Amino acid sequence: MMQKIGILGSTGSIGTQALDIISDSEDYQVEYLSCLSNFDKLVEQCFKHHPAKVCIVDKNKEKLLINSLKDENIEVLSGFEGLWELSKEPVDLMLNSIVGSDGMKPSIIALENDIKLALANKESMVMAGWLIKEIQKNKKNSIIPVDSEHSAIFQCLKGEKLEDVKRIILTGSGGPFRQKNINEFGSITLNEALNHPNWEMGSKITIDSATMMNKGLEYIEAYWLFDLPCDKIDIVVHPQSIIHSMVEFIDGSIKAQMGEPDMKVPIQYAFTYPLRIKNSINKFDFMVNNNLTFEEPDLNKFPCIKLAKDALLSGGSHQVVLNVANDFLVGNFLNKRIHFTDIPKMIEDCISRHSPIESPTLDEIDSLSIWTKEYLNKEVLNA
Amino acid sequence: MMQKIGILGSTGSIGTQALDIISDSEDYQVEYLSCLSNFDKLVEQCFKHHPAKVCIVDKNKEKLLINSLKDENIEVLSGFEGLWELSKEPVDLMLNSIVGSDGMKPSIIALENDIKLALANKESMVMAGWLIKEIQKNKKNSIIPVDSEHSAIFQCLKGEKLEDVKRIILTGSGGPFRQKNINEFGSITLNEALNHPNWEMGSKITIDSATMMNKGLEYIEAYWLFDLPCDKIDIVVHPQSIIHSMVEFIDGSIKAQMGEPDMKVPIQYAFTYPLRIKNSINKFDFMVNNNLTFEEPDLNKFPCIKLAKDALLSGGSHQVVLNVANDFLVGNFLNKRIHFTDIPKMIEDCISRHSPIESPTLDEIDSLSIWTKEYLNKEVLNA
Repeated sequence: MMQKIGILGSTGSIGTQALDIISDSEDYQVEYLSCLSNFDKLVEQCFKHHPAKVCIVDKNKEKLLINSLKDENIEVLSGFEGLWELSKEPVDLMLNSIVGSDGMKPSIIALENDIKLALANKESMVMAGWLIKEIQKNKKNSIIPVDSEHSAIFQCLKGEKLEDVKRIILTGSGGPFRQKNINEFGSITLNEALNHPNWEMGSKITIDSATMMNKGLEYIEAYWLFDLPCDKIDIVVHPQSIIHSMVEFIDGSIKAQMGEPDMKVPIQYAFTYPLRIKNSINKFDFMVNNNLTFEEPDLNKFPCIKLAKDALLSGGSHQVVLNVANDFLVGNFLNKRIHFTDIPKMIEDCISRHSPIESPTLDEIDSLSIWTKEYLNKEVLNA
Repeated sequence: MMQKIGILGSTGSIGTQALDIISDSEDYQVEYLSCLSNFDKLVEQCFKHHPAKVCIVDKNKEKLLINSLKDENIEVLSGFEGLWELSKEPVDLMLNSIVGSDGMKPSIIALENDIKLALANKESMVMAGWLIKEIQKNKKNSIIPVDSEHSAIFQCLKGEKLEDVKRIILTGSGGPFRQKNINEFGSITLNEALNHPNWEMGSKITIDSATMMNKGLEYIEAYWLFDLPCDKIDIVVHPQSIIHSMVEFIDGSIKAQMGEPDMKVPIQYAFTYPLRIKNSINKFDFMVNNNLTFEEPDLNKFPCIKLAKDALLSGGSHQVVLNVANDFLVGNFLNKRIHFTDIPKMIEDCISRHSPIESPTLDEIDSLSIWTKEYLNKEVLNA
């Protein structure tokens, strides 16, 4: 049976790979697409996939989009209101591949409307894990993780009981600076940080990998997603990115999910779950990937991991500020306004200055977000 | 609810570890025990576990056993008839940890009587896979593998569909001679062959690891156990024995089951399946086991793998002769009557001389076994 799919953030790395999967299959029909501002790519996707609705968040490009699609019978929406409107659309699956904090509200809206959510926006869980957990209690549909790590854990848990889990082990490549001396971190350039050893990803997550904040955010995401206490979530550095994550059970058995680093596997799994379908991915070559190693994460070099763990222990508002600050600062690092090492420093400072709330409401999350950006804006200008 | 367990081969490596697990739990009651001839250990186990029945295959020790147990209210049986009698006993689970070909009939009897079988005797499947598959068609209860490799695959398949399997990957340590030059194989001593790098096992399976016949037998076992075609079963050498085996699915996802080499995990899993229960095994230490490698098996150094694969393709009688010949020749190598390299040579010769039968009956398996031992007896005497 044809499934209706909605994709938010369709012009990004995950969104385009998802559309490739859809192109290769007869099983899916694109109901809507959205992007922040990549007008050209969105139009191209519309011509190819003929969604019923489309949204561009950048309102300046709305008219241009309407004009380009005038013969296409596609309803055009714009702005965040348009994005939230789309999130209510009754689809069989919404893929949320928005980058950063903007992804939170669409996740919440989809879940409130009992829409199955393929979640590639880990920031949703970091910003509002407590709210999402509450919504899920009363709904049938739930979240299928798309992050390779969380998809791995989700797959390893299939057929198993959560109460049998001794711990989950999030693996991380360690990013491009795993072997760099801590004394040289001050001079890290943008190009160096954008050069991920294993994964081809968007720029925001690539910088998150370089600071290892990505692993910190995943730690928080795992906490909310799998409903496990912090002491049952570990992080291990695995430079080859072949083992995508693992689950250790109470009887000493460990299950790992593996494969070459290719986001198509977890994206497709989110589409087909609980089924698997054949694709063109080759047999894994153990003679090429013949050496898998593990290391401890270096919390001195990568303080973002500790910042994230501490934020999770300290409460909701800490996680909101951590995440919004990280979004904002990564943006400023990408624009070459701050140094690589400013990211953790400014996040820590910002968290220490905010007024804590244990489980902030949506309105409080909004206020915290605005406060964080305003506070950091001044800091960055002074930097 | 207390489960009644019967253990065949209780004085061997698997049997004693199984009894350790039973000692640590309130959930199991030992219904019967058996051994080939290790009288002292069997008596000790009887005093500790108070089975209802016990069997010693070595008839010479029957009287001694009756005498030792005279105050214990334990029924004593002996010989193969006794073993087969026990195999019919209505228990919740029979653990067959007999070494070698003698394990086949008890497996068949248990399955015919619809008794759940924890199978540590891979030779059962090699000798009579076609018969066992036929019996299983009409029965509710089935086989839970205890071999670490097959337990790993069984665990990785939990919650998954067999039709979604691209292939299973049996891992093997490569044994003590993985790095030995092929030119030095002629001078391999018994002590060298008994020195397995990772696993503590009985002497027969340790020699099978050294020749890598173990991997060949497991290949055949996997074929019958998981009902997969030969081209979906691969062997990869993994010297650290941390990944116990893997399943690759049609969507490119691979699941691996891992842990330190410790047979208690698969034995316990066979007892508790489909549940897991807590035990005293420590958290896996990725910093100690921080390097996992893979290699191709060297079929020139380890012709037993190819002999086994060829036997599987060639039909039932080839597998019977392969297995009985291997049992017999390993015994003779352990008694220092033949050289290490005689094992594959004599197996190959013996297989080439037998009269093939596609799917031999039990009687034909018996005749083939007798023929094989008689044929090889002459060969060994002439060696």
